[in-house]
Amino acid sequence: MLTKLFLLALLAATPIQRDRLRSTLEELSKFGRNPDGGVSRIGFSDADLAGLEYVKRLMRDAGLTVTVDPAGNVHGPRDGREQLPVILFGSHTDSVPHGGNFDGDVGSMGAIEVIRAMNDAGVSTRHPLEVVVWTDEEGHHFGKGLFGSRASAGLLDPGELDRKDEQGITQGEWLRRYGQDPARIGDAIRKKGDVAAYFELHIEQGGRLEREKKQIGVVEGIVGIRRWTCNVTGFANHAGTTPMPDRHDALLAASRAALLVRQEVRAESGTQVGTVGYMHAEPGARNIVPGRAEFPIEIRDLDMAKVNRIAGRVMDGLKRIEQEEGVKIACAPLSEDAPALTDPSLRRMIQESASEAGFSTMSMPSGAGHDAQSVAHYAPIGMIFIPSIGGISHSPAERSDWQDVANGAEVLYRAILKRDALP
Amino acid sequence: MLTKLFLLALLAATPIQRDRLRSTLEELSKFGRNPDGGVSRIGFSDADLAGLEYVKRLMRDAGLTVTVDPAGNVHGPRDGREQLPVILFGSHTDSVPHGGNFDGDVGSMGAIEVIRAMNDAGVSTRHPLEVVVWTDEEGHHFGKGLFGSRASAGLLDPGELDRKDEQGITQGEWLRRYGQDPARIGDAIRKKGDVAAYFELHIEQGGRLEREKKQIGVVEGIVGIRRWTCNVTGFANHAGTTPMPDRHDALLAASRAALLVRQEVRAESGTQVGTVGYMHAEPGARNIVPGRAEFPIEIRDLDMAKVNRIAGRVMDGLKRIEQEEGVKIACAPLSEDAPALTDPSLRRMIQESASEAGFSTMSMPSGAGHDAQSVAHYAPIGMIFIPSIGGISHSPAERSDWQDVANGAEVLYRAILKRDALP
Repeated sequence: MLTKLFLLALLAATPIQRDRLRSTLEELSKFGRNPDGGVSRIGFSDADLAGLEYVKRLMRDAGLTVTVDPAGNVHGPRDGREQLPVILFGSHTDSVPHGGNFDGDVGSMGAIEVIRAMNDAGVSTRHPLEVVVWTDEEGHHFGKGLFGSRASAGLLDPGELDRKDEQGITQGEWLRRYGQDPARIGDAIRKKGDVAAYFELHIEQGGRLEREKKQIGVVEGIVGIRRWTCNVTGFANHAGTTPMPDRHDALLAASRAALLVRQEVRAESGTQVGTVGYMHAEPGARNIVPGRAEFPIEIRDLDMAKVNRIAGRVMDGLKRIEQEEGVKIACAPLSEDAPALTDPSLRRMIQESASEAGFSTMSMPSGAGHDAQSVAHYAPIGMIFIPSIGGISHSPAERSDWQDVANGAEVLYRAILKRDALP
Repeated sequence: MLTKLFLLALLAATPIQRDRLRSTLEELSKFGRNPDGGVSRIGFSDADLAGLEYVKRLMRDAGLTVTVDPAGNVHGPRDGREQLPVILFGSHTDSVPHGGNFDGDVGSMGAIEVIRAMNDAGVSTRHPLEVVVWTDEEGHHFGKGLFGSRASAGLLDPGELDRKDEQGITQGEWLRRYGQDPARIGDAIRKKGDVAAYFELHIEQGGRLEREKKQIGVVEGIVGIRRWTCNVTGFANHAGTTPMPDRHDALLAASRAALLVRQEVRAESGTQVGTVGYMHAEPGARNIVPGRAEFPIEIRDLDMAKVNRIAGRVMDGLKRIEQEEGVKIACAPLSEDAPALTDPSLRRMIQESASEAGFSTMSMPSGAGHDAQSVAHYAPIGMIFIPSIGGISHSPAERSDWQDVANGAEVLYRAILKRDALP
């Protein structure tokens, strides 16, 4: 009986139900909904907590025994037939302010759909399974993001629970308000070896799958990111009375720097990206030559050596700009996140699962951060991407085709069973 | 007796008293003084009005009959011996926020010192003389500036008195608070022919006189200014997931535009200037490709044809940037101020007065706006510049050497008498 079902799962469509999955996503979208149809379901907000209550109800209805750890992560374990490490899968349900209804939600609802489909088909597994919904992935209030998954990997910064948000409420207080004991945060840590594999289904949040007309993205890893904040010091002066050769215009130097970042990022082939997201000029009046300017730099790639190489060329170029513009440019490193590569065997299982289900695939890096990168510290990870319409994310216009959402859950279902076949 | 004094004025130092002039400037600097030694004496503020009371007292002490017109301009007429049009001279005493103690003040206190020196020397003139201190030259609250002098030229915009400042107070209400009747604003207009000449002594606010080691600047005219506000529309997207070739980065387009403005301004010889004073990116986060950016352009020169030629090349260049960056750039004209040329004969009188007093001179445009440009609509104007230390202005660090201040008053005194010798 088991073998027959297992074969069925490999050779034909699984019992994933597209419309059932869609209805749970639509129901979830009501929590924190904005008039434009998107959501503001900020981590730790009332809307987020209400959404998680809905998630827990769904988990319980699917027969899972729901627990919440001291970091606020919601767990739904399902027994396996053998004493083996758990196969973990899930995502998050918090959003950015004025975000959409797919980022995180697809992986969370997709994970629950997998359990319901297995229940429908009477599928049991050798390994215990566990659905997880991580706390505060977006990190709107505290800036860092991936709070719950970082807690699970013991990656919280010293003093992070004492950090205050813009309302003056500490991270620890937020945990306490929602029934957790911050003193027990260490209990959220997963031991190495306890998790056999972690799978995360997610929307791409970019436009590559759509452009390449591929149905499933097999994620090679989550890119590393280096970030700096740069300050240019020139000299503010009257825009009418200061001759062009006498100027030390901080904003023109910053403009050259932004173009330099793009030039150096583009100077190598590959999928690396680099961004300057704002420019603040002081005093910032139309009739005053800007004396100061602040701008950020971030560079991302799967290969940190490449990130560092590009950064080195950018910093060299900034020295030339300093000299030519008669300004000082100081770039302070803000953060450095190492890349998290996915596990080659899990990647292969995702690839094969997609192919067996008849879906076209492509390998790609994840340019965005995900909870999987925290989990990579204690378990092999695999990630499945589905196309984002127009490549749009972190926006009320964030969309994926419902069939693509179901395809993603289908691949997740199959990949879990493939992994379950191994020790 | 008159002839003797007149010759004396031409051949030797006038009775201008440097230390007396300095003491009035130092006394004026107490009104609206900031802890850093500069002033915030915004037009229509209590500090400004208190400063003007001091000015009126000085005028009365110098024997002038003080009147205030419905635009708030303070006038101090002195009789002439003949029925001739008036020789007008003065400046303003309001400041920018956190400004200095020389901009406007030197010309206002210098004008009163000229009267005191003439009184000391028993000099009378054929033409009536008139000291004027114009209202709200800097225009901090209402943005336009030159309020009093524009009113004297009938150049106020329709509805300008109904415009509200950031506190919701209209220009008309400000006038009423300070004892004027806005309905009578038209009475502030000076008739063409009533003013034989207008002289304004002012600090350079730039660094050319200092760099060229010249004591007196003979102003060729006040530059024309064209201003635009430009908006770039690209597409905001995730900085991690949006490949470089898919981006429509509004801030990079704005950066190229700022550099283009400089390039086109520099492409011709001359003293023209062009400035981009700020850049606002939206959403303005370090991890989002900017979807919108706003920046201003201003271009100044004595020759408006040159301003327009440069602007034309900038607008052509923006079209190329639009295409290459895949963005839209819309530049809306904000204002256009025509250049105001000084009168060649008044310029010559200033030049000769300086030379006769033994001062080195240079001809130069004024890159900043001045009340003289309003007066140019109804009378010939002449302007005298003295050096600004380090070229710094609109700053608490604004300074001029006290001897240069006295030299400026000396030239003003002599130029007035030269003009008085003509009909």
